[in-house]
Amino acid sequence: MDIWQLLRIEAMEQSQAEPYLASFLYATVLSHPSLERSLAFHLANKLANMTLLSTQLFSLFSETFSADTSIQVTMREDMKAFRERDPACTSYVHGMLNYKGFLACQAHRVSHRLWRQDRTGLALALQNRISEVFQVDIHPGAQVGKGMFLDHATGVVVGETATIGDNVSILHHVTLGGTGNRCMDRHPKVGNGVLIGAGATLLGPIKVGDGAKIGACTLVLIDVPCYCTAVGVPARIIRNTAAAVTPPPPCDFPGQSMDHTSEILDYVI
Amino acid sequence: MDIWQLLRIEAMEQSQAEPYLASFLYATVLSHPSLERSLAFHLANKLANMTLLSTQLFSLFSETFSADTSIQVTMREDMKAFRERDPACTSYVHGMLNYKGFLACQAHRVSHRLWRQDRTGLALALQNRISEVFQVDIHPGAQVGKGMFLDHATGVVVGETATIGDNVSILHHVTLGGTGNRCMDRHPKVGNGVLIGAGATLLGPIKVGDGAKIGACTLVLIDVPCYCTAVGVPARIIRNTAAAVTPPPPCDFPGQSMDHTSEILDYVI
Amino acid sequence: MDIWQLLRIEAMEQSQAEPYLASFLYATVLSHPSLERSLAFHLANKLANMTLLSTQLFSLFSETFSADTSIQVTMREDMKAFRERDPACTSYVHGMLNYKGFLACQAHRVSHRLWRQDRTGLALALQNRISEVFQVDIHPGAQVGKGMFLDHATGVVVGETATIGDNVSILHHVTLGGTGNRCMDRHPKVGNGVLIGAGATLLGPIKVGDGAKIGACTLVLIDVPCYCTAVGVPARIIRNTAAAVTPPPPCDFPGQSMDHTSEILDYVI
Amino acid sequence: MDIWQLLRIEAMEQSQAEPYLASFLYATVLSHPSLERSLAFHLANKLANMTLLSTQLFSLFSETFSADTSIQVTMREDMKAFRERDPACTSYVHGMLNYKGFLACQAHRVSHRLWRQDRTGLALALQNRISEVFQVDIHPGAQVGKGMFLDHATGVVVGETATIGDNVSILHHVTLGGTGNRCMDRHPKVGNGVLIGAGATLLGPIKVGDGAKIGACTLVLIDVPCYCTAVGVPARIIRNTAAAVTPPPPCDFPGQSMDHTSEILDYVI
Amino acid sequence: MDIWQLLRIEAMEQSQAEPYLASFLYATVLSHPSLERSLAFHLANKLANMTLLSTQLFSLFSETFSADTSIQVTMREDMKAFRERDPACTSYVHGMLNYKGFLACQAHRVSHRLWRQDRTGLALALQNRISEVFQVDIHPGAQVGKGMFLDHATGVVVGETATIGDNVSILHHVTLGGTGNRCMDRHPKVGNGVLIGAGATLLGPIKVGDGAKIGACTLVLIDVPCYCTAVGVPARIIRNTAAAVTPPPPCDFPGQSMDHTSEILDYVI
Amino acid sequence: MDIWQLLRIEAMEQSQAEPYLASFLYATVLSHPSLERSLAFHLANKLANMTLLSTQLFSLFSETFSADTSIQVTMREDMKAFRERDPACTSYVHGMLNYKGFLACQAHRVSHRLWRQDRTGLALALQNRISEVFQVDIHPGAQVGKGMFLDHATGVVVGETATIGDNVSILHHVTLGGTGNRCMDRHPKVGNGVLIGAGATLLGPIKVGDGAKIGACTLVLIDVPCYCTAVGVPARIIRNTAAAVTPPPPCDFPGQSMDHTSEILDYVI
Repeated sequence: MDIWQLLRIEAMEQSQAEPYLASFLYATVLSHPSLERSLAFHLANKLANMTLLSTQLFSLFSETFSADTSIQVTMREDMKAFRERDPACTSYVHGMLNYKGFLACQAHRVSHRLWRQDRTGLALALQNRISEVFQVDIHPGAQVGKGMFLDHATGVVVGETATIGDNVSILHHVTLGGTGNRCMDRHPKVGNGVLIGAGATLLGPIKVGDGAKIGACTLVLIDVPCYCTAVGVPARIIRNTAAAVTPPPPCDFPGQSMDHTSEILDYVI
Repeated sequence: MDIWQLLRIEAMEQSQAEPYLASFLYATVLSHPSLERSLAFHLANKLANMTLLSTQLFSLFSETFSADTSIQVTMREDMKAFRERDPACTSYVHGMLNYKGFLACQAHRVSHRLWRQDRTGLALALQNRISEVFQVDIHPGAQVGKGMFLDHATGVVVGETATIGDNVSILHHVTLGGTGNRCMDRHPKVGNGVLIGAGATLLGPIKVGDGAKIGACTLVLIDVPCYCTAVGVPARIIRNTAAAVTPPPPCDFPGQSMDHTSEILDYVI
Repeated sequence: MDIWQLLRIEAMEQSQAEPYLASFLYATVLSHPSLERSLAFHLANKLANMTLLSTQLFSLFSETFSADTSIQVTMREDMKAFRERDPACTSYVHGMLNYKGFLACQAHRVSHRLWRQDRTGLALALQNRISEVFQVDIHPGAQVGKGMFLDHATGVVVGETATIGDNVSILHHVTLGGTGNRCMDRHPKVGNGVLIGAGATLLGPIKVGDGAKIGACTLVLIDVPCYCTAVGVPARIIRNTAAAVTPPPPCDFPGQSMDHTSEILDYVI
Repeated sequence: MDIWQLLRIEAMEQSQAEPYLASFLYATVLSHPSLERSLAFHLANKLANMTLLSTQLFSLFSETFSADTSIQVTMREDMKAFRERDPACTSYVHGMLNYKGFLACQAHRVSHRLWRQDRTGLALALQNRISEVFQVDIHPGAQVGKGMFLDHATGVVVGETATIGDNVSILHHVTLGGTGNRCMDRHPKVGNGVLIGAGATLLGPIKVGDGAKIGACTLVLIDVPCYCTAVGVPARIIRNTAAAVTPPPPCDFPGQSMDHTSEILDYVI
Repeated sequence: MDIWQLLRIEAMEQSQAEPYLASFLYATVLSHPSLERSLAFHLANKLANMTLLSTQLFSLFSETFSADTSIQVTMREDMKAFRERDPACTSYVHGMLNYKGFLACQAHRVSHRLWRQDRTGLALALQNRISEVFQVDIHPGAQVGKGMFLDHATGVVVGETATIGDNVSILHHVTLGGTGNRCMDRHPKVGNGVLIGAGATLLGPIKVGDGAKIGACTLVLIDVPCYCTAVGVPARIIRNTAAAVTPPPPCDFPGQSMDHTSEILDYVI
Repeated sequence: MDIWQLLRIEAMEQSQAEPYLASFLYATVLSHPSLERSLAFHLANKLANMTLLSTQLFSLFSETFSADTSIQVTMREDMKAFRERDPACTSYVHGMLNYKGFLACQAHRVSHRLWRQDRTGLALALQNRISEVFQVDIHPGAQVGKGMFLDHATGVVVGETATIGDNVSILHHVTLGGTGNRCMDRHPKVGNGVLIGAGATLLGPIKVGDGAKIGACTLVLIDVPCYCTAVGVPARIIRNTAAAVTPPPPCDFPGQSMDHTSEILDYVI
């Protein structure tokens, strides 16, 4: 069954079980004809303020979502990501309505599209509202792959020239930052299936290979090869020699399995 | 004198000294018959948005606060906590109206009660608003003892199966997080009187004993025994052999004394 | 040309290029006679909520900005700071409207003035709103020099007795915190031209000398001499022997150059 | 079946038939445990503004409605009135949510109760909001019987010393006004079952007897006996000699039958 | 030139002449691609409240306006009406943004369409908001022709079975009301080119012929033939014998010429 | 004692007697340094909506009130008018905060000043908001004298070329309207001390002399000499021969005495 249909069934069940939420669920989900419209409505109400009206934002989001089919695809991949990777997430509707990371990411995809259309002023204004409301500060220029899962999300910062691959999971307080005040390529490039733990800080135009893992509280200033783990301040690399020989399938990448600790615990002892 | 009476006196004095605040103080404190009503009103206005109306939230909070006597007790213990432990807090009314940590904690106690009543949808919606407005992300399932002091509070994350004892003090950017994507017990258990410094990250179902201290910026992946201090990335344990023989009285626990540095400074040298 | 004139030209150009932003730019910039009025208007709308009305805040900000000429000067120095030091900032109007760090800093200057006038209740209420809206928690008692650049800004915490010199740059998640619950001088003193990297935590009444640099994720519990770099958890000091002999000119201080990595990378190897 | 149960069934049916209204119906009707709570919620949201918060008004209305059993009775009688007398009203839920006259009347009953408790300031503030939002200006001192039907309601004005009996129907633009600036009894006394047509103006402490009818656009400056009709500017009385001998049963009073024209048409010819 | 283009030019000129209005004009007119979108936006913001969100109304209005070409035509005819007939109206943009009668009429056209689609609940909810915000109470069932001009508009009431022809002008406080509580055809039928003066009250299923005029403060209970004038309480008919022989062209109908007085003055003497 | 001081004393007493109103009274009266600021604040909050922000209106009103000393005088004369002429008005603070007629009149004085400064667009936008919020539709071009009392105020309409003298009292539903669609002088000229009863309609460039009285529901199409009374539809004149010989002092003019009935009752008999 399609995610939108599942989500509507969940919303219907919750609206019957919880009268306090029924009006909220009708307004945000059940009264809309599509996931795109529902999400445009929800984001517009979240991000509106006295000088950026919800009606303006609703136009912007619903037009972008209906015009850009790749956003329609990534939106659903991002929903699968939180549903499969977060054991605390028990329904699509919960994540879609309540996860700051998911909402920030979808709004970023709109600001990124504006950025590529040279509508930089609007893209930056949107970035500001996302940062204020969700505390997720992703520059509109940053490229983010599908299947992105931003867990908790508070305090995430991603710089202008950063790129993030598919099926990456990033915890809260993570920084993909720059070094210095020069206007060139200055932010990290993160591969597919990477997992970045809470509080990790990656600085400079370094490369993090596919299937790599960055431990919590790690400060990364150097490249991290594929399938390796980086831990410590500053980071040292724990090499995964087996994986170097026989690369794991993408579904076993840490960005999907969310296994935060195994090698890190080794390092602890 | 009762905290509510003290708080009203403080509010009355401030309303006379500062005309700009008088209407705010009357609306939030002086026009209410009890601490429960005042706090319900204040939280409802803070957490309301276009789709969760303040009137709905006010009903929810005022009914919960009047129905649950244990919340009435912990509310007051939490107020004593910020008043006694924070030298920058010079009145009850200041902390009650302005401390994001206090407000987030009281709203969490309501979401936790909803969670235990199987009203999970509403509990999670509330968690989301607390996270957006106060940047404090405590899962409704987490158990939090009385006398909790969340200082500054921005960026605190507490997972579903975490438990926190009585008289604990937690600084900003602290994570009590999980490891992996399995649905079992996966978050830290924190004892009584524990102090957790700014930016500390505790991952996995580890135990932090009574009277323990976690240094700022520490990454804790292992158990921390009673009265001990954990510092470093990853943490190593500084044992308190004297305390192991003669345990200190709870009032000298670091969660109460807020002594962030003594053993940590030893470790520095 | 004066910053206000430049900013108006930028706003006019953007309003013509982007119809979605035109009403926002007119309301916040183009309809105002001065930078002070424009900023007062913008801050009032950002910080207002149901119990602190925008009209009240607008009065407060516009009166303070017109009465205090030193705030008028520092406001412009802070604008030069983000314009010169942030390669992602391509116009004054973008930074002035969208940078949480800039907005939080200007609102802090108002709360600091109130604090010095013994209007502590209003100062603290303002601190709370700044912390909720911008996630920047600067105690009204803290002294902040001119040319301050708070980049990204989410999660910054600065305590009551902290002082910060001129032309300092501070990244997100930085803490200038206290140790313990005693009411004396208990927070860091930061000199001129200092650069403090993302996630750095400075605790206690330590001194950070002019031109010093604090690496990202560093925990600083000891003094940092002039022109030196502190890295690690806890920090160790990398001395700059050349600079000790021939101090660099202030324009080469890291707070201005934003050079986050040079010595830190040495330390990595 | 009780009106509240009927109204909930109607609301449920409409919420299923019309997705656009579902959230509105859940928020105002279906999430509430009683008619009193539902109406308190709806009135609070209608009458709130920036300086009279919805949470304050919700407290006031819900406490008054639950404390005053006579208001609980008249509320239901007023609902029967619009349901039976207005052919354009096809459901209780429509009238209860949308009729300005019904809503203004219920809010007046609260302001009248405050007036009798000598809380005149709050009573008058409420009168003002009712007048602004519903364009119905009933002085809190005025006494209004049960079964009141204010049709369309725009522009109705009722003075301080006016009294209105049971089962009266009043069209829009009707004035029960005073004459002069002396503080004594100076407004009309209207009996039971009276019908007052659109635009009628009644001035001074005159008496309008039971079962009387006031034609549209009539200016009444003299008493109107029972069962009689007043028409014209100024009014002349059309006597009902049959009714004077054999009074009609109250259920045939014009206030119930809403028969606006019979005698008036006679008068026309 | 098309009305939308004229209106944009006017808005552009005003935004340059009056900085206070520029943001308002950009938000409501200049940032929109069509008259339909602009009007949908403006009406949504006017009619929204806490339980009917502006985003919901904006969807409803913009979809209706883009789907129904006859509404697109009448919208423009109504704009010509206020522009040509009201000497106080000096621009399209002024009338389109500020005239309650115009805005109420366009919103009524949407509620009427919903009514004919059997979406009666939403139609009636919309009628209520129009009545609260613009004080114009037109039942969704009423049929209104093109070129309608509602001048001042406060207090206009039009019943369910009323019909109004093309190019009619109606002043404030006018009632097209019913008589009694029976559910049949019970409201006036007004022809083309009719002018109805301020405070006129028309009751019952009477016919008002093409080109007729109803004097201010008139109470009409009988048919009014074509080209005739009705004055008085109750109305008597002033026949226009010349017009009965040689009917005037529609452009000379009083609904277009707005000649309120000629015959009425005769009647005075 | 000055009205502002009296009003503050009243507000202070009410804020102590009625906790529900205290925050409202502090926000609107007690936190302001002058009547001008208090009224500017109150009007701004009343008239603001999503596209005309309260901060913008507050600037406009407070600057106008402080720049124009004649408005400062008439504001106080208008307050004396409602206080002396309305027996239902028991305090200045009640009338100043709650009387739609007073608030509409003060806002009109600002729109009139804008009109004379050729800022017609803003003047007309303001007229629209006054008409929506207070249901008082006074064209910005109309001239209104001091000591104006608009009682109840709902539905008052005053045209562009109307003039109103000093110490006039006007009840609700009164129209000073035009006739026809020509752009010349076309509205009534009302002298000093005139009283115009509820529902009266005055059309065309007629003259109403000093001390005249217009009965309720009267339709006036001809001049009304000084000290005379006009009653009926259409009006006939009741001459006051005694006054023609010995004119009464202005303090006995009906606009001050509010004597609605004496001659009218004669006419009735």
